[in-house]
Amino acid sequence: MSKPLRIGVAGLGTVGGGVVRLLAENGDLIAARCGRRIEVVGIGARDRTKDRGFAVDKFAWFENPVDLAASDIDVFVELIGGEGIAADAVRKALATGKHVVTANKALIAAQGAELAAQAEAAGLTLNFEAAAAGGIPIVKALREGLGGNVVTRVAGILNGTCNYILTQMEETGRPFADVLAEAQALGYAEADPTLDVGGGDTAHKLAILASLAFGTVPDIAGVYTQGIERISPVDIAFANEFGHRIKLLGIAAMTPRGLEARVHPAMVQLGTALADVMGVLNGVVTESGAAGTSVFEGRGAGAGPTASAVVSDLIDIARGFRLPAFGVPSGALVKADRAPLGEREGTFYLRFDVLDKSGVLATIARSLADRGVSIESMIQRGRSPDEKVAIVIITHDAREADVIGAIKAIEAAGAVVEPPCMIRMERL
Amino acid sequence: MSKPLRIGVAGLGTVGGGVVRLLAENGDLIAARCGRRIEVVGIGARDRTKDRGFAVDKFAWFENPVDLAASDIDVFVELIGGEGIAADAVRKALATGKHVVTANKALIAAQGAELAAQAEAAGLTLNFEAAAAGGIPIVKALREGLGGNVVTRVAGILNGTCNYILTQMEETGRPFADVLAEAQALGYAEADPTLDVGGGDTAHKLAILASLAFGTVPDIAGVYTQGIERISPVDIAFANEFGHRIKLLGIAAMTPRGLEARVHPAMVQLGTALADVMGVLNGVVTESGAAGTSVFEGRGAGAGPTASAVVSDLIDIARGFRLPAFGVPSGALVKADRAPLGEREGTFYLRFDVLDKSGVLATIARSLADRGVSIESMIQRGRSPDEKVAIVIITHDAREADVIGAIKAIEAAGAVVEPPCMIRMERL
Repeated sequence: MSKPLRIGVAGLGTVGGGVVRLLAENGDLIAARCGRRIEVVGIGARDRTKDRGFAVDKFAWFENPVDLAASDIDVFVELIGGEGIAADAVRKALATGKHVVTANKALIAAQGAELAAQAEAAGLTLNFEAAAAGGIPIVKALREGLGGNVVTRVAGILNGTCNYILTQMEETGRPFADVLAEAQALGYAEADPTLDVGGGDTAHKLAILASLAFGTVPDIAGVYTQGIERISPVDIAFANEFGHRIKLLGIAAMTPRGLEARVHPAMVQLGTALADVMGVLNGVVTESGAAGTSVFEGRGAGAGPTASAVVSDLIDIARGFRLPAFGVPSGALVKADRAPLGEREGTFYLRFDVLDKSGVLATIARSLADRGVSIESMIQRGRSPDEKVAIVIITHDAREADVIGAIKAIEAAGAVVEPPCMIRMERL
Repeated sequence: MSKPLRIGVAGLGTVGGGVVRLLAENGDLIAARCGRRIEVVGIGARDRTKDRGFAVDKFAWFENPVDLAASDIDVFVELIGGEGIAADAVRKALATGKHVVTANKALIAAQGAELAAQAEAAGLTLNFEAAAAGGIPIVKALREGLGGNVVTRVAGILNGTCNYILTQMEETGRPFADVLAEAQALGYAEADPTLDVGGGDTAHKLAILASLAFGTVPDIAGVYTQGIERISPVDIAFANEFGHRIKLLGIAAMTPRGLEARVHPAMVQLGTALADVMGVLNGVVTESGAAGTSVFEGRGAGAGPTASAVVSDLIDIARGFRLPAFGVPSGALVKADRAPLGEREGTFYLRFDVLDKSGVLATIARSLADRGVSIESMIQRGRSPDEKVAIVIITHDAREADVIGAIKAIEAAGAVVEPPCMIRMERL
């Protein structure tokens, strides 16, 4: 057996603690699989005294992750998060000859190409399986398993907190704010939930998946991002009525107009793969030339699944597997044009809350027709003169800019009493 | 860029032709991903003159795959199938210093450990992603992506022909023989369908997945195998009534009694991951310690998906990735005890066709109760004295041997007019 792979783990939260425990628990199995042991030699976090379920004094302790990165280790495991000290530590590790494994989506989405170039120049590996969909080995699938394919689309449910909230809203009929508060009390949502429910976390992951799928420079600023805060139980109920379910999706596709990357609530048809991904689970669908449609589903977050992903990256390094971070040399990553979302064609769910009086429906229908948006089906329910009623419309395929133009015209005409709701319908 | 990886492709059927075409089509992309080109230099098949959609005279032609294996190549790609000349050629390739990529399930299931040992001793790679579930990168997931986990169970729909037939039977209500004949006419089933519908193909794949999941010597003889030939529309309809669907599953689990590996029709609950895998698709569910439940779904057969898997194996070799064929050194593969299936506990669907006369139900109920098999629910339909009626029973958890004992006693008592039907119900 070769000599151990010596690692330093910076950040001992849920994931960091999970990694240390998983390596201890399955040490022999992992050694058999790698032909060498993976040995934690240094660790570090903000608070040394916190109980993490293992004895910290078996390891060298580092207050400063940059010092841990520079210490006598083979691999630096960055589980701190964010782009501050974590970025400094990763750069220091690469500068001092250490491979890097990270779960840091924000860092890879924003600085991944630059870090990949630094790693390559030094002949080092930068792995980030845990940064995309936790326990689902989707980075490996895109970078290796589907390596012979031209991938044309990758789409997924990439945030377990949002999926949990939407699932609960559907099952209980309760509004977003209620379910979020409960999720926070149960520890399923952060005290500051913005990054999750606002779609930012999904956008980070999507930027990474798009880069792997299409060989493009990660472009987080190019990801259109909309969260689930405005999803209401009434839309969830209507979705079901139309045989659909609302999910927060990240979707990236290479189109003739450039890279289309968008995160938003979407209606997906019941019975299709992503519609059945419920609760905290994540799911990813890829479309590729030879393999066709592939679906991956599993736990996207939490100590076990994320540690599983981090350890798989370590196993690859221990086995001597070296490949560029994004599957192609960083110099070959293309800066993709951003496809204008307004040009996209799709079908749309529209809900207009209106006063039930004559002329309103005509205004709506005319505004849509004027822009060439035709109606596939319509529901108007609860007629009661001069009270608020909902008019729900499913469009035929239409240009997004035309639909948005029609909505604006309808609002401007004073036809609605609440801001209209538009939800994209996706065929996956 | 490094020098090309030179390969020889033996067997130019659906898969072999697909590999040659995929390497040509995506040659530049693959070269960017590998840092070198993958170049077909030699090919061979039984008939040189057949139209395969590409010009064979660009390549050196070999009548005999053993000669191709021994020729001046880096990797031998074996797409002939079976254990005859294919096995000879693979052995020759390994003996003459060639890496091997194969899609040959029968060969790997029967001789995988031996071939892995030969490859390891020579410092060569033996890859077989295409042998397990076609386009689904499940070998990579088990060998690498879930490498930090103790896997406890792997289960899947591994044969697209069977899944297509069962889907058609459910959708049209037609009997097995009819749907099979149509599938043959459409080219979805072989002229001799035995290996597919009899479960043998699924058993080969399951033996390979079990070996990867549990680090055991592939044990094809230890896989309990039952096909779908006796599934009738009436059972499919009853399954739906109980909120289930019938699938041909391969299931392998490591139990305290040894390795349990079984292929048989099973009822899976609607809404669970494998229940929704329809038509020719394949699906695999893994249970592992840290990652939890993971689901993989995609196309399991056909030129594109299988070629995609073969090419991913070639890309790994081109990138210099070397690891033992089954993820651990072949010397470390354990010969697992076979768990006796009779000891397994589960719930069962039982259908007894009986003459509608007094005493029959009592006989059935007593035979089950005598062996401690209790009834969760029962349907008896179409009462018409002295005519054939079906009594359908779902059991509570029961020992399989007890259920089979009860069925035999019921038959022996002359209570039934047709052989009873027993289908295992699976919670996945």
